[in-house]
Amino acid sequence: MSTSRIEAFSDGVFAIAITLLVLEIHVPEQPENGLGRALLDQWPSYASYVVSFFVIGIIWINHHAVFDHLVRVDRTLLFLNLLLLLCIGVLPWPTNVLGTYMQEGGADERVAAVLYTGAMTLMGIAFGALWTYATRHRDLLGETLSDEEIRTRTRRFTVGTPVYGLAMLIALVSAPACLVVNALLAVYYALPAGGAIPHRRV
Amino acid sequence: MSTSRIEAFSDGVFAIAITLLVLEIHVPEQPENGLGRALLDQWPSYASYVVSFFVIGIIWINHHAVFDHLVRVDRTLLFLNLLLLLCIGVLPWPTNVLGTYMQEGGADERVAAVLYTGAMTLMGIAFGALWTYATRHRDLLGETLSDEEIRTRTRRFTVGTPVYGLAMLIALVSAPACLVVNALLAVYYALPAGGAIPHRRV
Amino acid sequence: MSTSRIEAFSDGVFAIAITLLVLEIHVPEQPENGLGRALLDQWPSYASYVVSFFVIGIIWINHHAVFDHLVRVDRTLLFLNLLLLLCIGVLPWPTNVLGTYMQEGGADERVAAVLYTGAMTLMGIAFGALWTYATRHRDLLGETLSDEEIRTRTRRFTVGTPVYGLAMLIALVSAPACLVVNALLAVYYALPAGGAIPHRRV
Amino acid sequence: MSTSRIEAFSDGVFAIAITLLVLEIHVPEQPENGLGRALLDQWPSYASYVVSFFVIGIIWINHHAVFDHLVRVDRTLLFLNLLLLLCIGVLPWPTNVLGTYMQEGGADERVAAVLYTGAMTLMGIAFGALWTYATRHRDLLGETLSDEEIRTRTRRFTVGTPVYGLAMLIALVSAPACLVVNALLAVYYALPAGGAIPHRRV
Repeated sequence: MSTSRIEAFSDGVFAIAITLLVLEIHVPEQPENGLGRALLDQWPSYASYVVSFFVIGIIWINHHAVFDHLVRVDRTLLFLNLLLLLCIGVLPWPTNVLGTYMQEGGADERVAAVLYTGAMTLMGIAFGALWTYATRHRDLLGETLSDEEIRTRTRRFTVGTPVYGLAMLIALVSAPACLVVNALLAVYYALPAGGAIPHRRV
Repeated sequence: MSTSRIEAFSDGVFAIAITLLVLEIHVPEQPENGLGRALLDQWPSYASYVVSFFVIGIIWINHHAVFDHLVRVDRTLLFLNLLLLLCIGVLPWPTNVLGTYMQEGGADERVAAVLYTGAMTLMGIAFGALWTYATRHRDLLGETLSDEEIRTRTRRFTVGTPVYGLAMLIALVSAPACLVVNALLAVYYALPAGGAIPHRRV
Repeated sequence: MSTSRIEAFSDGVFAIAITLLVLEIHVPEQPENGLGRALLDQWPSYASYVVSFFVIGIIWINHHAVFDHLVRVDRTLLFLNLLLLLCIGVLPWPTNVLGTYMQEGGADERVAAVLYTGAMTLMGIAFGALWTYATRHRDLLGETLSDEEIRTRTRRFTVGTPVYGLAMLIALVSAPACLVVNALLAVYYALPAGGAIPHRRV
Repeated sequence: MSTSRIEAFSDGVFAIAITLLVLEIHVPEQPENGLGRALLDQWPSYASYVVSFFVIGIIWINHHAVFDHLVRVDRTLLFLNLLLLLCIGVLPWPTNVLGTYMQEGGADERVAAVLYTGAMTLMGIAFGALWTYATRHRDLLGETLSDEEIRTRTRRFTVGTPVYGLAMLIALVSAPACLVVNALLAVYYALPAGGAIPHRRV
């Protein structure tokens, strides 16, 4: 199977998951204090929508930054990619849970934040597994990435993972703070410096 | 990242958002006065569906009219595009809110109209930001657009924006009138005269 | 705008609408007489799903049979195509209404059948408008279709339209009979003889 | 119609169906014993999500393994493909039914398992029909597959089908056991040995 075909299918899943996120923003039903108030009370849905939207968008960019260098795809990579897509495809659900329960508050809010961070962590692990497998099989990755560049990117992914662990701890204390950490992680992965998307490529 | 890849991903989000709009048209549940009556009472859902459908369709056309001239995409443009897609992807939600609350009437109907116009305004701003950034970086935009043509298009976008402000004021008075203004704005952006899509290209 | 880009976008809308149809098949909630019975009682949902699925699939085939001959797209054709996509994109809704109310029976069932046939008729009209406009502007359609072939296809579309009128009358009497007529119309448009897809092309 | 166009449309349906699966994982509503408990109780939804996700992913891989060899598509193949897509597009529904009723338990759980296995069996039959038709018309399939390879693949598909019959029997006894058998069938179709995707192609 050609890499372009897998990329097209992956792009489809990314585009659908990112657009399905909107289904988590609800139409208020019979608001007692008026629609305006009910819409304002829904702010956690908007916040989690925006964070998840940019997370999926950035993973999509980084996904291409890996696939652009692939010259070949073997069966293992095909299934690692399917695993990553599973993690992407499921994201509208924890986003919905977090948006819903941050409106409720209390202990459930923090459970929702743990779920959300857990989903993000799994996605990070799936992406890391795809990256690690590709870099350890240079016949798949081709010659367009230098060893130096591979090390830089790998370091970057390694730094991000423990922060997800930290986000998990913060989730146990405060859901909004946890969402902020997830947003900052998205910003970190989006930043160019030494990052997943080298300047000269984008 | 090549412009064709970003276009394909953007097209996916446009196509999904435009098709998800249908989820805002509800199946009447246990209508007291018969299904026919209940279906007629839902007319605001149909009206907002049609307006949002053509708005997304026209933005899609104008999006291509910009990307056709791009020779390169940098990181900033990538994120401005992601911001525009976020505004497109969210549209089914205010469309749903407007369609639902125009059936209720009262003050909530006007709040829904403000939300709807606000979403359209944000989308207009995101599109304008993309356009402005592209025109200020001629190394991105290439040489296929003359300065004259760029000025014509920019003027066109500039004229549209204050009308969104007017639509917002009208939303405070009448939701149906506000929907009509949004429809007229869509027609304005769709018209060819000096417009976003020059005759010779389409 | 190139015809291939419009085709890709249209294909996206076709693929999403055809897949969203599944949302009209519900998960029975707390069935009193067991899940098996509740699943059997839902047969109208399955029937309307299958009919709508093949209708969208066949229109997709015929859409390509038109666009394969187009060499150019003008602004009017662009909007006629958007109108057709609007009719395609809305189909999951009447399919849902018909599937739901054929389980209820009574007068509402026939209202649902009228709505369903009306949606199909509108789609037929939108497709006919696209076809007629394309054939009247030979600079758009190119030279690959002979006048004889155009006449054959036009005759075919002309024969189908009054049958939709007949289906509407039948809808007033019996919803299941109306669904059967819609299914037969789909079969008619799918048949090869002198049809929209000449043998040598597929 | 070119094979690449049918592949692109099919890929769209596969990508949308696989992503719509997420809608079957619900946001718990007003959980009495806390959100954490409610999320754990939903484990059947996660299990059926993962199984259906990989089934669709593997069928997508095998679909390409067939279409890569097709040089031409005739009308019958077009409709056999549409039939397969119908079976793929409907999968989110039995997945939802199984995920929901495995939380209820009892007789309904086994009915749901029968429905799920039935949907998988139909999909297997539709894929088998597509494969058989293609192999019996060597003018469609081209010369890139040897008779030996065709026999190997056909044997493989033939072995799988009676196992679906066995899965159906197991569904009558235990829903979780039936889901495990469906997962094992997915693994079987994914395994390389003499399989649908020869080593040298992927």
